[in-house]
Amino acid sequence: MGYSVDLNSDLGEGFGAWTLGDDDAMLELVTSANIACGFHAGDPTTLLATCESAATRGVRIGAQVGYRDLAGFGRRFIDMSPKDLTADVIYQIGALDGLARVAGSRVTYVKPHGALYNAIVHHRRQARAVVAAVVAYDSSLPVLGLPGSVFLEEAREAGLDVVAEAFADRAYTAEGTLVPRTESGAVLNDPALVAERVRRMVVDGELDAVDGSTLKITAESVCVHGDSPAAVDMAAAIRDLLESSDVEITPFT
Amino acid sequence: MGYSVDLNSDLGEGFGAWTLGDDDAMLELVTSANIACGFHAGDPTTLLATCESAATRGVRIGAQVGYRDLAGFGRRFIDMSPKDLTADVIYQIGALDGLARVAGSRVTYVKPHGALYNAIVHHRRQARAVVAAVVAYDSSLPVLGLPGSVFLEEAREAGLDVVAEAFADRAYTAEGTLVPRTESGAVLNDPALVAERVRRMVVDGELDAVDGSTLKITAESVCVHGDSPAAVDMAAAIRDLLESSDVEITPFT
Amino acid sequence: MGYSVDLNSDLGEGFGAWTLGDDDAMLELVTSANIACGFHAGDPTTLLATCESAATRGVRIGAQVGYRDLAGFGRRFIDMSPKDLTADVIYQIGALDGLARVAGSRVTYVKPHGALYNAIVHHRRQARAVVAAVVAYDSSLPVLGLPGSVFLEEAREAGLDVVAEAFADRAYTAEGTLVPRTESGAVLNDPALVAERVRRMVVDGELDAVDGSTLKITAESVCVHGDSPAAVDMAAAIRDLLESSDVEITPFT
Amino acid sequence: MGYSVDLNSDLGEGFGAWTLGDDDAMLELVTSANIACGFHAGDPTTLLATCESAATRGVRIGAQVGYRDLAGFGRRFIDMSPKDLTADVIYQIGALDGLARVAGSRVTYVKPHGALYNAIVHHRRQARAVVAAVVAYDSSLPVLGLPGSVFLEEAREAGLDVVAEAFADRAYTAEGTLVPRTESGAVLNDPALVAERVRRMVVDGELDAVDGSTLKITAESVCVHGDSPAAVDMAAAIRDLLESSDVEITPFT
Repeated sequence: MGYSVDLNSDLGEGFGAWTLGDDDAMLELVTSANIACGFHAGDPTTLLATCESAATRGVRIGAQVGYRDLAGFGRRFIDMSPKDLTADVIYQIGALDGLARVAGSRVTYVKPHGALYNAIVHHRRQARAVVAAVVAYDSSLPVLGLPGSVFLEEAREAGLDVVAEAFADRAYTAEGTLVPRTESGAVLNDPALVAERVRRMVVDGELDAVDGSTLKITAESVCVHGDSPAAVDMAAAIRDLLESSDVEITPFT
Repeated sequence: MGYSVDLNSDLGEGFGAWTLGDDDAMLELVTSANIACGFHAGDPTTLLATCESAATRGVRIGAQVGYRDLAGFGRRFIDMSPKDLTADVIYQIGALDGLARVAGSRVTYVKPHGALYNAIVHHRRQARAVVAAVVAYDSSLPVLGLPGSVFLEEAREAGLDVVAEAFADRAYTAEGTLVPRTESGAVLNDPALVAERVRRMVVDGELDAVDGSTLKITAESVCVHGDSPAAVDMAAAIRDLLESSDVEITPFT
Repeated sequence: MGYSVDLNSDLGEGFGAWTLGDDDAMLELVTSANIACGFHAGDPTTLLATCESAATRGVRIGAQVGYRDLAGFGRRFIDMSPKDLTADVIYQIGALDGLARVAGSRVTYVKPHGALYNAIVHHRRQARAVVAAVVAYDSSLPVLGLPGSVFLEEAREAGLDVVAEAFADRAYTAEGTLVPRTESGAVLNDPALVAERVRRMVVDGELDAVDGSTLKITAESVCVHGDSPAAVDMAAAIRDLLESSDVEITPFT
Repeated sequence: MGYSVDLNSDLGEGFGAWTLGDDDAMLELVTSANIACGFHAGDPTTLLATCESAATRGVRIGAQVGYRDLAGFGRRFIDMSPKDLTADVIYQIGALDGLARVAGSRVTYVKPHGALYNAIVHHRRQARAVVAAVVAYDSSLPVLGLPGSVFLEEAREAGLDVVAEAFADRAYTAEGTLVPRTESGAVLNDPALVAERVRRMVVDGELDAVDGSTLKITAESVCVHGDSPAAVDMAAAIRDLLESSDVEITPFT
């Protein structure tokens, strides 16, 4: 039996007059669309159009929930209370789910964004707050997160389905966390190199960390960021290499 | 057979550290809670708590949708495109509906807020945009609005259930519209006077306009604003007078 | 004696992760920089960098004040009270002036943005509110506006210096107002055509309106929008044609 | 020679329709007004009115700068870059200074608010970023902060005047930091008790910490929060007790 993997991308991340990335091109290449929910990015008009574009192409929609921080694009940790975080996440999922339903689809999973994603690798109270929001909204929704994170651990304990995610275009530390964007070399953008990294993640379950060590990794879903300039080229290269390596690209189950 | 009327109030209109009105007291007195959706007021934590408080008391929840204008509390007309308005309204209904469901309830109707409410008395393109949002989200949701407004006319034509609303604590022009808040005498706050106005609206179907003329009025639901200082006293006085006048206070149907 | 004209452009209009236009390239071509002030666009980091870039090149800084509406990019009329508008404009000028001074420069003029610019062509109460803000902040600051607008009329009456502005890349109605962006043909983007329009404005004082009629126009300063895709090409073409036509490009006086 | 102290309070902290505290009453009692700058609270209309009210009473105006977080009232740490923080602080000081000048006064000092205040007790990079903003804007402006904080240490090293602040209505840890608001007993509200604490701070230079130990404290300026329900009563009680104890209440020098 062959290998398979889900490809996901962060989409709907414009705001009003400001656009970001080529969402339609990415939607031709990925199997899951993490669509922003308005707190770190995404005005309702953009979000509705992105939901419609995903629905038309049969791409699954996930709620990409984040901190309320348009000025920081959700990339700055906010030390908010679990109670407020839970309410913020429910609000975001509900808002996107409404737009997704109008577009003929539904929110079918939840993936935290940016600083929230990174915080809940270790921050147990915030991790629990996000899990509590998903459980309260719809406990049948799976969550995407970093393998080994307290987020996935708490989600599993709360009975949620969890999906182990890997990043095509990000460097990893030897501990399996992402090298912060503020460090040089954190973001990769060579399509051929990135495609080979993904093939190796999926087929061999390993990856070179930034210190040169080999990291064991589980990748049920692989993220290609939609906002990097080379995003479309990278996603296309990944798709080509996986298909020619007999890896099926299909939504996670 | 006797008279009956629904009492509604605008609730959940705090934001973060800022509170507004005594929502719990109002929820003991009204039958429908128009809960803010975060665009003119209402952070998610406040909204969730208000939904829970309404659900506990069996008070129906409506989505009080408004312009995206926290600084203006949604009381300033914004000349936005119908397309953007439709998306904004869907987003707001979905967000509140998510919180309401977590609270064990649902959004069961839609009432526009403030400047949007007033604009769509006459502004046909924005009226249609709000109607389009409700139809797209859930065409079984009734809408509250001013009798004679193009909003209710468009809603009816689109197949939505419409509920004719009257205002307990607002002065009316001879044309049946609300005297703008910027004019003196626009907002009433004498509980006995307000209660008698409501009794007369419901039982006699009429009202004194600001110019002294008598206005015919239909009032399936009567609004008492939750943010006026005398809100709780007025709602209590209305309830007392209606009950002693054999008017049943019950959710609109 | 020869002709001269000021070239201005709207700059600093990114927000956080979102960028807009090529500000550094435009700053090589214009003599006045209308820098956003954070209400319709412009986070402080972007604004400070733009001020520094303008100061380095000796390009004069103007405060491009707008409605508080990031989601609408200040392009939607907001029916706000004159009192609130005056305070909003003072706040914006002060904020940008602080950043400009840190950059070694100062705010030396004020130009309203987008829907506010268009509203105060006719809307006297808002026009007065903007004028009141400039007078209160620093009555030596000139204002840029449309010739014939009530804004320039009120500004002149209040003793402010006024600068008549024309738009290189926008179609005009026969009445001398801008064709709304929502109409096709409102925005021009052919560098040669635009350059010739500007030459004719400056040298002949006339312009073809959208209905084919000839419009008399005064252009002490000509705006090239920084956010149109062809902005840099247009500004360069204008500069080339004006210089080869012996028109001096120099700050307005 | 007798004792003297400055009394300061956080004012201008409403936003649009939402009000907070009784600013006019507090302005009768304090000698320094820390006025919000719009990022954690304070719309321009409120800020201008508060500046005018302070100017009329001869109360000095300080810029109360905070994180951009209206939903969290600036009480949540945001892990933002020093570069962005510096720009945000300059923007805020400039905006308030513009309003203050229109009101016939000026910003004469800077005091960080809420989570930023607490963060830069220890967070050196953010402390330096705030110091850099003040130095860049106007290096003659003193800063208020917690004695022993890295903020005051960095400010002093950068050549700024520093003012040691104590809190009338907050409990202290044995280390001289504020007990977090999330813990019970963090906020005091008994006017007599608070007044006696302040008298002892100023005259004896000491204070009972929350663990019962005695803390040495320097208090050149004492803060009474304007948003606590008992704020006016506390400020009045402090003023009465200090005056009857021959402590002069006068702006810090």
